[in-house]
Amino acid sequence: MAPRLIVLDWGTSSLRAYLLGDGGRVLDTLSAALGILKVADNDFDSAFEQVCGTWFAAHGDRPVLACGMIGARQGWREARYAPCPAGLAEISAQLVHFSTKQRRRFAIVPGLSFEAVGVPDVMRGEETQIFGALEPEAIEQRLFVLPGTHSKWAVVQESQVQSFATFMTGEVFALLSEHSILGRPMTDKIHDAASFDRGCRYAMEDGDEGALLHQLFSARTLNLMNRLASNEIHAYLSGLLIGSEVNAATRRFGTCARAATIVGDSALCEHYRRALALAAWSTHVADPSVTPNGLWRIACAANLLS
Amino acid sequence: MAPRLIVLDWGTSSLRAYLLGDGGRVLDTLSAALGILKVADNDFDSAFEQVCGTWFAAHGDRPVLACGMIGARQGWREARYAPCPAGLAEISAQLVHFSTKQRRRFAIVPGLSFEAVGVPDVMRGEETQIFGALEPEAIEQRLFVLPGTHSKWAVVQESQVQSFATFMTGEVFALLSEHSILGRPMTDKIHDAASFDRGCRYAMEDGDEGALLHQLFSARTLNLMNRLASNEIHAYLSGLLIGSEVNAATRRFGTCARAATIVGDSALCEHYRRALALAAWSTHVADPSVTPNGLWRIACAANLLS
Repeated sequence: MAPRLIVLDWGTSSLRAYLLGDGGRVLDTLSAALGILKVADNDFDSAFEQVCGTWFAAHGDRPVLACGMIGARQGWREARYAPCPAGLAEISAQLVHFSTKQRRRFAIVPGLSFEAVGVPDVMRGEETQIFGALEPEAIEQRLFVLPGTHSKWAVVQESQVQSFATFMTGEVFALLSEHSILGRPMTDKIHDAASFDRGCRYAMEDGDEGALLHQLFSARTLNLMNRLASNEIHAYLSGLLIGSEVNAATRRFGTCARAATIVGDSALCEHYRRALALAAWSTHVADPSVTPNGLWRIACAANLLS
Repeated sequence: MAPRLIVLDWGTSSLRAYLLGDGGRVLDTLSAALGILKVADNDFDSAFEQVCGTWFAAHGDRPVLACGMIGARQGWREARYAPCPAGLAEISAQLVHFSTKQRRRFAIVPGLSFEAVGVPDVMRGEETQIFGALEPEAIEQRLFVLPGTHSKWAVVQESQVQSFATFMTGEVFALLSEHSILGRPMTDKIHDAASFDRGCRYAMEDGDEGALLHQLFSARTLNLMNRLASNEIHAYLSGLLIGSEVNAATRRFGTCARAATIVGDSALCEHYRRALALAAWSTHVADPSVTPNGLWRIACAANLLS
């Protein structure tokens, strides 16, 4: 099958490249630890050629489409956020096109922005995952949950992202585990589901919900009182934070049907599936490798292949 | 005036010693960066003599009473938590008495514990501040707020601490400022009251309250959209976290009269005073140097001076 398009998932810590054939079929993949914060002297031209040069040598000129932090202000070219509601048409109209030093036809996907109660929110990269996971022609409302360092909850209707919210759950969990008093007794870390559920349930408890800064301290006191083993703190704290996120997001998004599609790393998706089930959500875990498919669809909408 | 008692506020990072005369009057003070985590080989005997030896040399044998982390499991001697409700009688009955290598008569104040909805909470050192700030013979209900790394809200009635709750606000603020993506643009840090209030108000906003993991991200997006200057993020984030604490504590403790006594570092007390005012609390900021007075009262209740 002839290669039609090169797509890149170019984030903060890594660059993943896919060579796509007709219908977006993945013909080859390459990756490198060349995330945008790791590219020496911001020489993105060289980093890109280093990874994808062999494809050009083998197959000749092909268009390239990239998503992720490569489009941030500190990336290769800034691709400004497209405001919600935004679908494939709005995203493809806002692609940033340019020629690399080696005259490759390069385009970058914009992130999305959404504003509620005077406070803006942004995503960059997740929009591509959403459109990769969304069935074409989807009209009814869908809720997507994309767990991660900064997890995203997005409402999609009539094939457009209508609104979304970010939760800094993953980053706060890493900080508390690595640098806080709660992490100190975490000698070894098992992920036991019972401790995870226990943390979740406490975060969702009536009356105390929303008091996260208070609830966090229970990871210390339960351990201090020998009611939570040191190797259970990690899972308990994870449950507490994800439970707090699910609880707050349920108040915001759970007014309609409590059904969500979860997209992301499979271990993390499983944690979210458990937490969402405790809050009476039904869930569907999507194939995690949706990004190349999303980029293929954006490329089609933008007529990059013609 | 003749010295009657030596009292110590011996925490994680420092040791503060006070020589007290009749009525608890402070005759002399000494301090050293000899917090319990900084005492080499846990040789608390030597650290104590290094700081207070001159007082014994000058005045002879005097009883010593200490509060703070020195009574924790990793301290000199463990002083187990006294369960709430607890007043001067309960605390003084649970002092841990021992003789040091130099045969000083040493006693350590226990911390307090409280249990709600199956989750324990603890304090160690703050109980002494509370009894130092409380008017003797106070019968009516008082609410104390003690800001810090782990701030405490405590309900006192009939001269006993009835219940309390810990919020990890100070520690989470430090972690986010120093290690998270939110802290990166904090080039210089001014404490402007307007940004602080803005963060507070957002944390207290109807509908979004409790969604702290979501709200935190606004410190990044407002900056990204040029609606919050880099040197304003620090105050905004402080307001957001303290506002979240005050909001959650108001739901828990604000059912009675919204009047609180704030005890602690004066800059921090001012931040809490502002946040409490936004939540319609009236406040009184106590003299921050209440610890020696609290230790004096506990010593009197325990007949240490006889």
